Amino acid sequence: MPASYAYLGPEGTFTEVALRTLPETATRELLPMVSVPAALDAVRAGEAEAAFVPIENSVEGGITTTLDELVAGEPLMIYREVLLSIAFALLVRPGTRLEDVKTVTAHPAAQPQVRNWMKAHLPDALWESAASNADGARLVQEGRYDAAFAGEFAAARYGLVPLETGIHDAENAQTRFVLVGRPARPAAPTGADKTSVVIWQRDDHPGGLRDLLGEFAVRGVNLMLLQSRPTGEGIGNYCFAIDAEGHISDRRVAETLMGLKRSCLKVRFLGSYPRADAASKAVRAPLAGTSDTEFVAAAEWVARCQDGRFPA
Amino acid sequence: MPASYAYLGPEGTFTEVALRTLPETATRELLPMVSVPAALDAVRAGEAEAAFVPIENSVEGGITTTLDELVAGEPLMIYREVLLSIAFALLVRPGTRLEDVKTVTAHPAAQPQVRNWMKAHLPDALWESAASNADGARLVQEGRYDAAFAGEFAAARYGLVPLETGIHDAENAQTRFVLVGRPARPAAPTGADKTSVVIWQRDDHPGGLRDLLGEFAVRGVNLMLLQSRPTGEGIGNYCFAIDAEGHISDRRVAETLMGLKRSCLKVRFLGSYPRADAASKAVRAPLAGTSDTEFVAAAEWVARCQDGRFPA
Amino acid sequence: MPASYAYLGPEGTFTEVALRTLPETATRELLPMVSVPAALDAVRAGEAEAAFVPIENSVEGGITTTLDELVAGEPLMIYREVLLSIAFALLVRPGTRLEDVKTVTAHPAAQPQVRNWMKAHLPDALWESAASNADGARLVQEGRYDAAFAGEFAAARYGLVPLETGIHDAENAQTRFVLVGRPARPAAPTGADKTSVVIWQRDDHPGGLRDLLGEFAVRGVNLMLLQSRPTGEGIGNYCFAIDAEGHISDRRVAETLMGLKRSCLKVRFLGSYPRADAASKAVRAPLAGTSDTEFVAAAEWVARCQDGRFPA
Amino acid sequence: MPASYAYLGPEGTFTEVALRTLPETATRELLPMVSVPAALDAVRAGEAEAAFVPIENSVEGGITTTLDELVAGEPLMIYREVLLSIAFALLVRPGTRLEDVKTVTAHPAAQPQVRNWMKAHLPDALWESAASNADGARLVQEGRYDAAFAGEFAAARYGLVPLETGIHDAENAQTRFVLVGRPARPAAPTGADKTSVVIWQRDDHPGGLRDLLGEFAVRGVNLMLLQSRPTGEGIGNYCFAIDAEGHISDRRVAETLMGLKRSCLKVRFLGSYPRADAASKAVRAPLAGTSDTEFVAAAEWVARCQDGRFPA
Repeated sequence: MPASYAYLGPEGTFTEVALRTLPETATRELLPMVSVPAALDAVRAGEAEAAFVPIENSVEGGITTTLDELVAGEPLMIYREVLLSIAFALLVRPGTRLEDVKTVTAHPAAQPQVRNWMKAHLPDALWESAASNADGARLVQEGRYDAAFAGEFAAARYGLVPLETGIHDAENAQTRFVLVGRPARPAAPTGADKTSVVIWQRDDHPGGLRDLLGEFAVRGVNLMLLQSRPTGEGIGNYCFAIDAEGHISDRRVAETLMGLKRSCLKVRFLGSYPRADAASKAVRAPLAGTSDTEFVAAAEWVARCQDGRFPA
Repeated sequence: MPASYAYLGPEGTFTEVALRTLPETATRELLPMVSVPAALDAVRAGEAEAAFVPIENSVEGGITTTLDELVAGEPLMIYREVLLSIAFALLVRPGTRLEDVKTVTAHPAAQPQVRNWMKAHLPDALWESAASNADGARLVQEGRYDAAFAGEFAAARYGLVPLETGIHDAENAQTRFVLVGRPARPAAPTGADKTSVVIWQRDDHPGGLRDLLGEFAVRGVNLMLLQSRPTGEGIGNYCFAIDAEGHISDRRVAETLMGLKRSCLKVRFLGSYPRADAASKAVRAPLAGTSDTEFVAAAEWVARCQDGRFPA
Repeated sequence: MPASYAYLGPEGTFTEVALRTLPETATRELLPMVSVPAALDAVRAGEAEAAFVPIENSVEGGITTTLDELVAGEPLMIYREVLLSIAFALLVRPGTRLEDVKTVTAHPAAQPQVRNWMKAHLPDALWESAASNADGARLVQEGRYDAAFAGEFAAARYGLVPLETGIHDAENAQTRFVLVGRPARPAAPTGADKTSVVIWQRDDHPGGLRDLLGEFAVRGVNLMLLQSRPTGEGIGNYCFAIDAEGHISDRRVAETLMGLKRSCLKVRFLGSYPRADAASKAVRAPLAGTSDTEFVAAAEWVARCQDGRFPA
Repeated sequence: MPASYAYLGPEGTFTEVALRTLPETATRELLPMVSVPAALDAVRAGEAEAAFVPIENSVEGGITTTLDELVAGEPLMIYREVLLSIAFALLVRPGTRLEDVKTVTAHPAAQPQVRNWMKAHLPDALWESAASNADGARLVQEGRYDAAFAGEFAAARYGLVPLETGIHDAENAQTRFVLVGRPARPAAPTGADKTSVVIWQRDDHPGGLRDLLGEFAVRGVNLMLLQSRPTGEGIGNYCFAIDAEGHISDRRVAETLMGLKRSCLKVRFLGSYPRADAASKAVRAPLAGTSDTEFVAAAEWVARCQDGRFPA
């Protein structure tokens, strides 16, 4: 197993910053890749131990490329997630003043997060998209554009200076990244975990999706995220990528997954891993009747009934 | 263990006829008891191996005495059920003609089943209740009443003759009887089984009962009967006696019982036993996703996910 | 319309005591009838304005005769309910001492409420059933039995004295009575009301009853009581008598009834009337989103959408 | 009202082809706009009668820009939808052979639909993104790239020729477009309609989304599409854009919308309009109990109960 992590490059992007928050990166080779599929293919091909890619941001929603890569192809699993607050700096060549900025660039994903700021401060500047925020900074360095929106950390690398920092149209703008590897035993439960699955409905009838969500509800498992993704079998055909509270080793989650496996046409397990928001958000205690202790007690009670050793 | 069955006596009632349809009665002593509680207490006290009592009839519904005895007190279990079609004969002393009948008797439970017939054929006869249909026949023999409604089979025993047979106001009038014993391993599954439980809700909120029934529905277990019985804690406080399709050794039933055990304040398992209507009614195949095979496959799939041995 | 109320007689029973708590009885003729069906038939035949009958007690559960009479036959409606706490007196002829009591009588419904007391204080006394508690008192007066369990209020009428009062095995023993009349406009809503219906399921499938209860749950209407009663079409065929919180003039209840009407094979409306426990029990406020105000606002919103007058 | 339709330009794209399938475009001025927001803003500003934009495609799923524009800002409504099968042609300057193609271009959305074809036929060609497929064609005309993936219809406009046609990785690749206008009365029901709404949940609890979907299920309204979109209030906060079968003038749909309005924090009605797949897909009859006739009958029944005019 190569001691390397692939990630969505190039260097100098938010992805790299998020990745470097993982302690083990100190001892790993970090390989910037040109795209999410390339990063994940490196894992599938055994060329990297894991891949680190964005999966959701609070402005744009699910990163569909990442979701679709996880939904299809050789199975992969999520082992870790990282949340990063996103704020942009406006990077310019030293000496450039705000009134000099006629052209700006950045990755298209940055646009909805800086649109209002631009309207207010650079109403006449021309926007052009770059392949990445880092690439945008490089193009400013080369003189192709006057300014780039990028992470402040990118300035030094490209010999630029931040003219303005902390730019973000939406409060609490965050991006969620995941560390993805080949299937193996999930990370150990921490008490504040998340489980990701993809489900394909068996058939389509009134109440069908409601009944599938009933598999979670009846066992007290809370949904954190539900995203529909096309199955590729024509318009209107969707599967659902779901994040739920809890770990596959929690009995309530395991039984929910069993229920999904039985009721769905297909289920893909994408992993159980620690919640990145565990520090900032109160983690709910299991609902009455859904703790592991209660599951075990109930299973024992049924076993006693089955054996005729009657419950006291 | 005494080789005897207690039953709701006296001799010569429908209960005895139903009991004698069980092959093993040939080698058991049959003990008529004065009441359902007496019959069940004989089992609890170890004086009888089992008790045979009516639990439901198609005209009156659940036999509340029997239900309440099973719901409360030392746990008992149902091992067998018998369905008996009920039709009455009008028994008289030899020589009595219909126009001679001024007084009739029978157990009160017979009344709703012969009311219309009486209106039509004995509009002026006076009804008085007897402790049992057999007792009514005895009182006719003794000359206290002119006629008794009872099973035709009771005529010979009391020196009476049937003036009319096949009397039943309701089509398909049937009574269901159960053989009840001390808790032990349930009867082996036959593929057409029934499971009986009593559940006490944890709290009372809009949707509470619906959610409990969801424990059955989400696992594809069909309800056959749901009866509310007072808990004895004041008006409006009820528990529910439920018959469901399937056997506790069926995975879908076992998981449902686990779910109830976790979600309810209290659950009492009353047994899994062969359905008496298996011959007459088509037994449903399990719904898609709820067969034992599918439960086992789903459990294995979850185990593989938990272990990191990823499903092919 | 005759200014008379029929009731389950004879005089001197708990039913009469409960009936007399209704102020309007001061100006009505009260007609004791021999049975619940007789009382209800008097209403159906126009011989009485209303009938007052027991419908539920905290020890025995639903009074099946009353339920079955309301479920079938010409439609009737409930206009009022009365709750009466039940405690028995042991009535004897003056001079009788407890040790003289060898035989006791009462209506069979009294038995489960005095059983434990008898075991403790009259372990050897013989029980025989009477047609009513009042009738039992009369038979004691006539010397046929030594003692009768009845309401203390019955002593004077039959020249008896209470040897013991306040006898009740179950704490909080109560009986619920209803005033039943021919269909007319329901009693006005009081803010603490109850609605009674009977529903017949359209078909029988896993989740069928759960789905019907969903009609209540989705509109935030709480169930107070659900009782199954045989439809008369053979064993295992049941309809459900349901009491729910709220009044048919509450929008959430009206929409629930519409939903039942559409989803069920048959629905019978049995009335909306003030809750007798309104004084003793906190009445729940409607759940969020289910008040009349919110229903009206939602209906107006939909009307605006339909008309293209877009909501602000 | 200006007799013009804005659309996502430039000219010569699939959007324009889809738009021209609407008969009324013959008498409208068609205004190509640089982006979906620009097209919708033209409507909001009163500069165009309606805007025609893609909203979903079978390969990429929901077009998030369009969804987000409909979810937020001044309310708009959908009046029409169009389905267009998507297949690409490889357009080149006359004389170019397949082996001459070293660089290709197209809008990024085209890439997943031509990826496999490229691997097979142009494994070494370099892909670069264009602002639109039409723009890609223009750049080929100008000699900047060797070939462009675009609709075959774009060839003539740019003096190119199709080297290959019918290119599509996914079978049944389709894009769905919608015609969006300012709020007004919805299109008349056709019997095969679709209703679009956006809902924001009131709170987040286990079973919350399941319960909201219950608003649809209990009234027999089938979901066609459910897409989560971030609310902009931080990661993990989503609203749901839902397409359901039926028209707001259908009683079952109207009552569902009322239920959502009451249960949700916020609901935005996006319109009821004819289904574009009505010709190709069988349209389901309403479930038992959910037709307008049954709704009206049920409402009348409740009204009769409320008035005391009792149902026969």
